[in-house]
Amino acid sequence: MRYELYYWPSIQGRGEFVRLALEEADAVYVDVARLGRRGVPALMRFLEGRAEGYLPFAPPFLKAGKPVIAQTVNILLFLGPRLGLVPKAEATRLWAHQLQLTISDWLVEVHDTHHPLGGAFYYEDQKSESKRSAANFTAVRLPKFLGYFESVLRREQGGWLLGKRFSYVDLSLFQMIAGLRYAFPQAMARLEPKYPRTVALHDRVALRPRIAAYLASPRRLAFNQHGIFRHYPELDL
Amino acid sequence: MRYELYYWPSIQGRGEFVRLALEEADAVYVDVARLGRRGVPALMRFLEGRAEGYLPFAPPFLKAGKPVIAQTVNILLFLGPRLGLVPKAEATRLWAHQLQLTISDWLVEVHDTHHPLGGAFYYEDQKSESKRSAANFTAVRLPKFLGYFESVLRREQGGWLLGKRFSYVDLSLFQMIAGLRYAFPQAMARLEPKYPRTVALHDRVALRPRIAAYLASPRRLAFNQHGIFRHYPELDL
Repeated sequence: MRYELYYWPSIQGRGEFVRLALEEADAVYVDVARLGRRGVPALMRFLEGRAEGYLPFAPPFLKAGKPVIAQTVNILLFLGPRLGLVPKAEATRLWAHQLQLTISDWLVEVHDTHHPLGGAFYYEDQKSESKRSAANFTAVRLPKFLGYFESVLRREQGGWLLGKRFSYVDLSLFQMIAGLRYAFPQAMARLEPKYPRTVALHDRVALRPRIAAYLASPRRLAFNQHGIFRHYPELDL
Repeated sequence: MRYELYYWPSIQGRGEFVRLALEEADAVYVDVARLGRRGVPALMRFLEGRAEGYLPFAPPFLKAGKPVIAQTVNILLFLGPRLGLVPKAEATRLWAHQLQLTISDWLVEVHDTHHPLGGAFYYEDQKSESKRSAANFTAVRLPKFLGYFESVLRREQGGWLLGKRFSYVDLSLFQMIAGLRYAFPQAMARLEPKYPRTVALHDRVALRPRIAAYLASPRRLAFNQHGIFRHYPELDL
């Protein structure tokens, strides 16, 4: 199968959670919107309802032959068993999906640190609100999410979120830690010692041969101030 | 199967999307936290990691025999085929799930109209921010989501989101319209004429015998100012 990933071409964003799974599995895929001038118009054709198949609300979406599947966690639910990145048993797949959904909720809260009033307003027009939102995030919500995943790793043992079995959710937790280090270096430096299993998981993912190769390649976009993880020093006190 | 639903006892909230599916299917279930004084402690036992099974991050979660499944959309993914509320084919189940995930994103934006800075601050301490957030929601985001679901109903035909086949996603879209009417009566009165298929779907769901009986029963909590849908007149201009 040759997969087609449709996502905005200049940010890691939600697409990155899919890219990491495709890269780890050495899947054949095209990152359509990054192919050149025709990339974004190809993506827009789906969003505007001018393409065949089920209508996506927003990127990312994945074309896998005929089906067009949208919503990051849904794409991973679909890809997981096909790429060998989750066990086949339904109970385990639902558990992996549940963890991925919690990561997705966490990601929304990261986004809301710099856009608490929504994407319609520039950061500069919601800066004081962002400061309040980010202060609560780094003091309360960030430890809560980190603590949750640390507890899961402690309970399940084996070093991965599903225990001994590596899965796509580990790739997503890696991405969260990488992004949070970019966005909130001070808060993370202070917090990380309390969550050794989570940090160790991040480091082990980064060393996986295909992930290491991907991170060193031009296919990995750099974090930047247009993505979900943004570094504003005033929000990281 | 006798299901146990764990959710906060005094609000519809996210639990309501699960309740509606259980009610429509005439499933045998217990709404544990509403059973009396021992209800909420029973729920907390899971959240605090003192119970068997996979650790939930937050309610709602569902105990289905031994498995404990958390995250609203994940519970519906699990229940859908078991309750006969979604077709069995994988492609259709993923499509239903994708729609449910988009409803879930929409619900977060509804919540953020009255808590843009997060749940840690009282509404009264983020009232001016809420006004900006809600104004953008009713002017831009609400029409966007309504327009999306109207487009899906137009494309798929048959009157339900999956076409001719009724599913749990229709129950969830019903709940969104009901909640939005409670929270934003003026904005909805203005917008609804543009989305006739969506409004018709709401009305048809409300007339389904088991749903009608449920809505008239004491099991259906009233909307109130502690839930996700809240009516603050100053946010509905």
